[in-house]
Amino acid sequence: MDVAILVFDGMTALGATGAYEVLSRLPGCNVVFTATDAGPHRDAQRALSLVADVALDEATAPDVVVVPGGPGEIQVRHDARVIDWLREAHETTTWTTSVDTGSLVLAEAGLLDGMTATSHWLALDELGRLGANPVAERVVVDGKIITAAGASAGIDMALLLASLVEGDLVAQQIQLSIEYEPEPPFDAGSPFRAPAVVVELARATSRFVRTV
Amino acid sequence: MDVAILVFDGMTALGATGAYEVLSRLPGCNVVFTATDAGPHRDAQRALSLVADVALDEATAPDVVVVPGGPGEIQVRHDARVIDWLREAHETTTWTTSVDTGSLVLAEAGLLDGMTATSHWLALDELGRLGANPVAERVVVDGKIITAAGASAGIDMALLLASLVEGDLVAQQIQLSIEYEPEPPFDAGSPFRAPAVVVELARATSRFVRTV
Repeated sequence: MDVAILVFDGMTALGATGAYEVLSRLPGCNVVFTATDAGPHRDAQRALSLVADVALDEATAPDVVVVPGGPGEIQVRHDARVIDWLREAHETTTWTTSVDTGSLVLAEAGLLDGMTATSHWLALDELGRLGANPVAERVVVDGKIITAAGASAGIDMALLLASLVEGDLVAQQIQLSIEYEPEPPFDAGSPFRAPAVVVELARATSRFVRTV
Repeated sequence: MDVAILVFDGMTALGATGAYEVLSRLPGCNVVFTATDAGPHRDAQRALSLVADVALDEATAPDVVVVPGGPGEIQVRHDARVIDWLREAHETTTWTTSVDTGSLVLAEAGLLDGMTATSHWLALDELGRLGANPVAERVVVDGKIITAAGASAGIDMALLLASLVEGDLVAQQIQLSIEYEPEPPFDAGSPFRAPAVVVELARATSRFVRTV
């Protein structure tokens, strides 16, 4: 199984690396990081560069595509090289997936028209404007498209995908190998559970929330 | 606050990137990825290279050190350049931390002698052989040393550290920004909860489990 993970400047690294850490452990799975140009691409937090080993035109016909998110997605949405690659890849993928605001890129490519999908919680309205039916869920499967919520949801998405591809036992082995028994010190990971002041602060600084 | 995250060939990327995604969001925090040599370093799964922007001798006197784990830690443990850097940095850090088998590197440097610490669940015995008092917990704080369990625990560790440094509200804001409300599809993330066959398979292939 060939997995292509998109990287781009301004990505949120955890969305890609969380999914990668799971999918790369699937038996017989070949993962490649790919970008418009091969080489290092700096993440949104500006201190980490992930290397794309190959350019998009070398990552042809992957079985699985993973599109992460992050503030850089806005440039990616308007980059015809990425959109064209994504549309072409999607024609033959087994699974086309996204994490975080990567779903906005799928939507821009027209892959989510009328589909049920998710995204970072602050981007759900934007996802709707782009033609999808947005839902506030952790991981959403609609046909062969799987979308995940904000960056950390890439791990959950990839474990589900692992079970769909290789069965529950393999997915559980992978979960145990990365010791994924999360213990967040706070219950503040979703807008439905975080303290109101925390949610309001996030909304006030979001690039997605527009003046009413 | 200056944070130095160690990278090395054969690391498990998620341990570093999970902690990074949290710590880099702390106000006024400068993170640098560092290695014996600046440049790209390939992870244990072999498809991802993380770039160290600076060499160790340029990452002097960090306030926080993060040492990730992965199979490559065995080479790191025997690399005097890393061990010397770690010992010197630890003299002036506010927090010295590890994720996954990164605690074995701290132990090799002599920083965990008699200290309570954790590691990847399969490496707890090895951690004990190296002089620490190993415990099977998600995140362990002993003095200014914080150790975390297998790779995914770096997120939990960093959120705790964020709260210690900047308070609960900031840590909660960060948790919400990465939408860290985990929903693992299985309850198989620890050896105490995973199906027995999954645990046995992991033990059977572990590099840490020795013939009795």
